[in-house]
Amino acid sequence: MQRNVVLITMSFLIDSLFGRLCYYFNKWQTNQAEEEEEEEEVTADHIVSRGGRPRVSSADGVCKCHACYGGPDCSCQSGPECIIDLDHGDPTMYEAYWLVNDASSTTVIPGWQRMSYFAAAAAAPAAHTSSSSRVEQQEQAVAVWFMEHELDVQIRALHAVVGNAITEGRHIVVGTGSTQLYQAALYALSSPEQSKPTSVISAAPYYSSYPVVTDYLRSALFRWAGDATTFKLQQQSSDPNAAEEEEQQQYIELVTSPNNPDGRIQHAVVNGSGPVIHDLAYYWPHYTPITAPADHDLMLFTLSKCTGHAGTRIGWAIVKDAAVAKKMVKFVELNTIGVSQDSQIRATQILKAVIQGCNNYGHQGNRLQPQEADQDSANSNANAAAADPADQMTISQHIQNQNLFHYGHSIMSYRWNRLRAAVGSSSSSSTFSLLDFSPDQCTFFGKKTTPTPAFAWLQCNKEVDCEAFLKARGIISRSGRHFGVGPEFVRLSMLERSHSFELVVQRLASCSSPA
Amino acid sequence: MQRNVVLITMSFLIDSLFGRLCYYFNKWQTNQAEEEEEEEEVTADHIVSRGGRPRVSSADGVCKCHACYGGPDCSCQSGPECIIDLDHGDPTMYEAYWLVNDASSTTVIPGWQRMSYFAAAAAAPAAHTSSSSRVEQQEQAVAVWFMEHELDVQIRALHAVVGNAITEGRHIVVGTGSTQLYQAALYALSSPEQSKPTSVISAAPYYSSYPVVTDYLRSALFRWAGDATTFKLQQQSSDPNAAEEEEQQQYIELVTSPNNPDGRIQHAVVNGSGPVIHDLAYYWPHYTPITAPADHDLMLFTLSKCTGHAGTRIGWAIVKDAAVAKKMVKFVELNTIGVSQDSQIRATQILKAVIQGCNNYGHQGNRLQPQEADQDSANSNANAAAADPADQMTISQHIQNQNLFHYGHSIMSYRWNRLRAAVGSSSSSSTFSLLDFSPDQCTFFGKKTTPTPAFAWLQCNKEVDCEAFLKARGIISRSGRHFGVGPEFVRLSMLERSHSFELVVQRLASCSSPA
Repeated sequence: MQRNVVLITMSFLIDSLFGRLCYYFNKWQTNQAEEEEEEEEVTADHIVSRGGRPRVSSADGVCKCHACYGGPDCSCQSGPECIIDLDHGDPTMYEAYWLVNDASSTTVIPGWQRMSYFAAAAAAPAAHTSSSSRVEQQEQAVAVWFMEHELDVQIRALHAVVGNAITEGRHIVVGTGSTQLYQAALYALSSPEQSKPTSVISAAPYYSSYPVVTDYLRSALFRWAGDATTFKLQQQSSDPNAAEEEEQQQYIELVTSPNNPDGRIQHAVVNGSGPVIHDLAYYWPHYTPITAPADHDLMLFTLSKCTGHAGTRIGWAIVKDAAVAKKMVKFVELNTIGVSQDSQIRATQILKAVIQGCNNYGHQGNRLQPQEADQDSANSNANAAAADPADQMTISQHIQNQNLFHYGHSIMSYRWNRLRAAVGSSSSSSTFSLLDFSPDQCTFFGKKTTPTPAFAWLQCNKEVDCEAFLKARGIISRSGRHFGVGPEFVRLSMLERSHSFELVVQRLASCSSPA
Repeated sequence: MQRNVVLITMSFLIDSLFGRLCYYFNKWQTNQAEEEEEEEEVTADHIVSRGGRPRVSSADGVCKCHACYGGPDCSCQSGPECIIDLDHGDPTMYEAYWLVNDASSTTVIPGWQRMSYFAAAAAAPAAHTSSSSRVEQQEQAVAVWFMEHELDVQIRALHAVVGNAITEGRHIVVGTGSTQLYQAALYALSSPEQSKPTSVISAAPYYSSYPVVTDYLRSALFRWAGDATTFKLQQQSSDPNAAEEEEQQQYIELVTSPNNPDGRIQHAVVNGSGPVIHDLAYYWPHYTPITAPADHDLMLFTLSKCTGHAGTRIGWAIVKDAAVAKKMVKFVELNTIGVSQDSQIRATQILKAVIQGCNNYGHQGNRLQPQEADQDSANSNANAAAADPADQMTISQHIQNQNLFHYGHSIMSYRWNRLRAAVGSSSSSSTFSLLDFSPDQCTFFGKKTTPTPAFAWLQCNKEVDCEAFLKARGIISRSGRHFGVGPEFVRLSMLERSHSFELVVQRLASCSSPA
């Protein structure tokens, strides 16, 4: 403990006394890093300045720099006092991809279009039927009156291309992000007749938003009951006679897989009679090997983590049971009278571009020939068993390749290699530990890939409060306490813009190296 | 009662036996009506076919006709068996205006823009400050981290132009429609410490969605308690000593003005210590005279009823108290992690077009000269005191005039005249009654105008169940029962597309005429 205090004090001294020196050192390091990642930025260089892509304000046309960068062309890096916020999982990393693939992904909405509460397709579903199976499907379909039919079509097509979820014979319900659909699922799966609220449980570490999103309205339908493993033990130790009575606690289990925060593949823990919500926000090839199409009763997905369009607020549920889907539709109706048509149009456009990219420049063959095998791409595929032309491609080639998942996997592999190199070996004597992941066969890439999660789940080996330790070094993270575990853990977003990520890696490396 | 049965039976007989005859009669009537409303449709005729504007499906390019119309060019009118749904207040009437004013209202969103959860302005608010008062305002501002700064600017500008609400020194919170903000307000105004839920009340007839939206999650924070007048009487009759104890019922009063369903200007009933939510969705010049800028603690507005963009799901709250605004922001964060950036961009674009229209072709002077005074425009201004060039303009001139409120007021006046003519005099011997409204000075138009509400609140004088009576005549309405009053009332949307409205007027006229 005393040693920690000494370390923190030393850190403060270094920060304050050698701030300027550190600034120039960081600047030199960043120049090095910039040279290393030249490949990544080159395609967007006509728009992306060194420090950050200008964001044009529609009001005054002023360009704004991203965090920790300034100056007229955003090329000046701020000193170590500048805070980098990795608390949220804001997937701004993907902007670089969409900058290059803009032509196919621009959405245009005339002023008179999509004005109704009701989605275009709801009025005349028969017009969309192109095969007899589609006709049958429509006839059995739950009327998601606010959902653009074309979005439904593109979501099914995307899952078919990626192979990560079964959609045939399932109902798709769109939501204002998957957070709304999570609440819709709780509403649909709990009964208004029950005497006490249904317990909502999830194995720790669980997504930090779930407890508060479950409880903020103090609903009599459901309430957060914490760790699923603890709940299971309590159930097993309770009186078996009592368990058979109506006193038996109703529950809904929530399984996030790959898990937020730690990236692990998860399965239901309780395995009882209660329904399970599968949050598959991260079950995409850029984050984890797709081993089989997911086939659960209720699955949640979101555009945010698939394509990076978090601000569009589009999620979708794939639901087996029509009655559950109907209740979820009712929830969305009561909660927000449907889902923004503009967001749905944009999501449709974006998904079309993703599917087109997969089809044109797919995982079976690449049009571009490998030219320069860059460091990151080579590293990222160290574990890959099969030789694939895609392995040899640079990140910028993947961007131009118009295949979002190849791009995503490349850049995530690059980032995880950078992170692991900065953090060093995961021994108890090191400052930090990271989980190790085993490679698995990915059906999408047709080869073995190693998980590269959207979050780093970092453990401080020598610090009690890892969040505070990082905060003192200008990194905002989210403490393990919010995820149902101890403060020695923190979650860091791996999806930030490149320059923020590079600054974080530098700072972590300086913490990790021997004093 | 027996007479009702006879009437309904007769109606069924007429419907079934003379269906074809009625079809041709309706067709002839519609032709007459079409000639009458030639002015209204002429500007959009290159796109609008007789029966309905084609909606192009992005999947197959197939044109679809609106309800009750068919054929290759949507010019065939369906028979009396065709149902017209006026249950919802879907403001599709405005499509005609935006078709003509498309150039200024088209929204374009490149694939890489607005990807973040966070709105553009939140990162660098200082960049937007253009005056010292703005700087102070920003410093005191509640961080609505998901709100586009430019939308905030346009909302304030719109209220300044229209003069219908005070925004200076107030916080503006955007929501996924005003329904979400209503729930956010309940969350913000109720205390988590109270022993029992806060009673939510509103004077009957009240908006039918409020009870169910208040209660669907069975929150311990608030619960629907019905009519405000009844609540006030109960409070007055309860033991005054008990009232002073903690047993005194906490309440939130909801005032919708102009009221949904009946269009009347409303005020708080209880006038106690409880907070009041003012739903001002219909406080716009096309529906009611703007007598003064509204100046309440918490006011709700929505794009749906102002510009007709219901599918965009954008509402806003104007909030005096920073703590209340902060809690509302928290609710939107927990409920949907912010509000669609795409919808906000579109709403900004639409509001800019509205404001531009007001400024260029404002109520002070019109560029267009009056040419043909059509029947509807002349009727609509029968009560107007001052002679205004705008009075002499046709609806199509108003559309071209690019002033949404002149257009809206013209078409609503035309519709109300049509409806009143169809329903006949509101005596007890007539089939239907409608409320009468007195004209009042409208500061926006600078003259006296008569209220022309977004809904008709129709009373059946001879029928117990007005909803069933209309349903048998192919009109879906919403029964008074849903609004806290009797089934002799129904609410009918006045904002449907022209052709549906004309069909309804025909059907009501045929019910109203002596058998």
